[in-house]
Amino acid sequence: METRQSTQWLLKRRPEGEAGPDDFERVEVEVGPPAEGEVVIEMKYISLDPAMRGWMDDRPSYVPPIELGAVIRAVGVGQVVASKAKRFDVGDWVVAPSGIQSVYKTRERSGLRRIDPDLGPVTWHLGVLGMTGLTAYFGLFDIGEPSEGETVLVSGAAGAVGSIVGQLARIAGCRVVGIAGGPDKCQHLVDDLGFDAAVDYKAPGLHKAIKAACPDGIDVYFDNVGGGILEAAISRTNDFARIVACGAISSYNATEPPPGPRNLGLVVARRLKLQGFIVMDYAERYGEAVPRLAQWARDGSLASRETFAQGIDSFPDAFAKLFSGDKMGKLMIEV
Amino acid sequence: METRQSTQWLLKRRPEGEAGPDDFERVEVEVGPPAEGEVVIEMKYISLDPAMRGWMDDRPSYVPPIELGAVIRAVGVGQVVASKAKRFDVGDWVVAPSGIQSVYKTRERSGLRRIDPDLGPVTWHLGVLGMTGLTAYFGLFDIGEPSEGETVLVSGAAGAVGSIVGQLARIAGCRVVGIAGGPDKCQHLVDDLGFDAAVDYKAPGLHKAIKAACPDGIDVYFDNVGGGILEAAISRTNDFARIVACGAISSYNATEPPPGPRNLGLVVARRLKLQGFIVMDYAERYGEAVPRLAQWARDGSLASRETFAQGIDSFPDAFAKLFSGDKMGKLMIEV
Repeated sequence: METRQSTQWLLKRRPEGEAGPDDFERVEVEVGPPAEGEVVIEMKYISLDPAMRGWMDDRPSYVPPIELGAVIRAVGVGQVVASKAKRFDVGDWVVAPSGIQSVYKTRERSGLRRIDPDLGPVTWHLGVLGMTGLTAYFGLFDIGEPSEGETVLVSGAAGAVGSIVGQLARIAGCRVVGIAGGPDKCQHLVDDLGFDAAVDYKAPGLHKAIKAACPDGIDVYFDNVGGGILEAAISRTNDFARIVACGAISSYNATEPPPGPRNLGLVVARRLKLQGFIVMDYAERYGEAVPRLAQWARDGSLASRETFAQGIDSFPDAFAKLFSGDKMGKLMIEV
Repeated sequence: METRQSTQWLLKRRPEGEAGPDDFERVEVEVGPPAEGEVVIEMKYISLDPAMRGWMDDRPSYVPPIELGAVIRAVGVGQVVASKAKRFDVGDWVVAPSGIQSVYKTRERSGLRRIDPDLGPVTWHLGVLGMTGLTAYFGLFDIGEPSEGETVLVSGAAGAVGSIVGQLARIAGCRVVGIAGGPDKCQHLVDDLGFDAAVDYKAPGLHKAIKAACPDGIDVYFDNVGGGILEAAISRTNDFARIVACGAISSYNATEPPPGPRNLGLVVARRLKLQGFIVMDYAERYGEAVPRLAQWARDGSLASRETFAQGIDSFPDAFAKLFSGDKMGKLMIEV
């Protein structure tokens, strides 16, 4: 039977601060034919996400850390090329927790999900119909609970989750303000994604710019970054505002925990709610969200920009781009 | 008609840090007979609360600041001694937003509430049946949502609100742990109020002590103090824990805003909810809570310790006691 070559990226050591090429190791392994109950998948696209940086640290979190010497954890889309599993046939498209590797062999029970390639481009299942879109959907609607006419502020707004959050808030009839780095991204939010206003966090005067962009205050703040932007957003909240805590990209690379917002006392005076969530908690409700997201994506009210890094060898450089602010929309490797 | 002498305490200047005697001014005024629609109330007990310190600062909050030269805002219990108001008769007992003064003349519409002196001691209406008890009730049950068998941690546990929160959590079938300053208060929590354990925040090893007292982690943290204790509590939360943000006594006197908790990133990983509230938002539901609180107070399952400062002249000293940690239970002036 056929043997395939898989290129894998392993976690060689735990990064201190920003992850760099020396933290990873590229290896080639032979992947043999599937045993009973196994499938072999040729990966086509692999998603790169800020959360991966957290998994590289050896500290308690919502999932165990990536072990040293193990393939770096990631999710991708691929096609079944060999199968001895009941539920999967050669040619099936699947979303798979493959990690960063080009060929993935696994038992059928381990988190594989068949997808319908006719619903839209298969890459949508790593973005607008995948964890990214679902994170935006449940975070905004379940925790943020926006009402028509309210102001929704989102940070990391040009990023994968943030750009969908803003568009969903627009669909919900809110005034939508995005925070992003640099004039190009800000213009993209307003011109291409229909945001009502954008704030460049790299420009001076963040507090004033937020105030000007949110003249009626902030009712929902979808926080993708934490740190000083969280503090600035809190200062402009209205009474009973909801803060959706979705990751804290500004501190993923921090070796010292950053101080929390100094104005947390406003939580009482303004009756704020700050709530964290993990999209996996909503697994039983994905079926409610996917058709709605697909409908909006198909009718054009939900655009999702995708950025591709070419080839699996691009992993270390592409991963660094996640944190340099040097990307737009969903970042993935085209294997 | 009769004229009465009222002793008033005014806000002379805005305190910097801790409020002291020089920030207040004692005056005597003549209170004439009531005009049409007015009542004159002889105040018997006036409640002292940490929130008063916040009202002395000139900064936006959920209520306007106390104006310079005005009577210091406070709530008390008194008896109507003269009335030209339709709804109040001489002899009626009332809860009134009198401020710190011995005789209070007001129009009947302005926040007066007749109380039933047979429900229990009239001072209960400043404590277990008043804002204190209602704050504990709605904060714990509505925001904390404790389930039987869960662990509830409360800071400021020997204080007015905290001591009621702990007892309500015990009534709800939770493991209850209180944080208080000094061995006497801690013993009081366990021996007199039925807490399962108490942690002395003045002793070294706060983190370890919380860990030992909460072996199954924390499901609800009722935060009366903010600051470092909030950070320590966050570090021991279970997934999906609720943090009830009820004032932040440790920072009321701060001139610089204190840094927030450095471990706020756990809000995402553990799906924490941190929510602030103001008891006044629940005004329409007081009627649901008061009979339940009164029942528990009468049957002895809800004890409320009261501390009295003697005479209205004791105000400056008594007010300072609120923040020195040198008190137990509800503090009020016996006029």
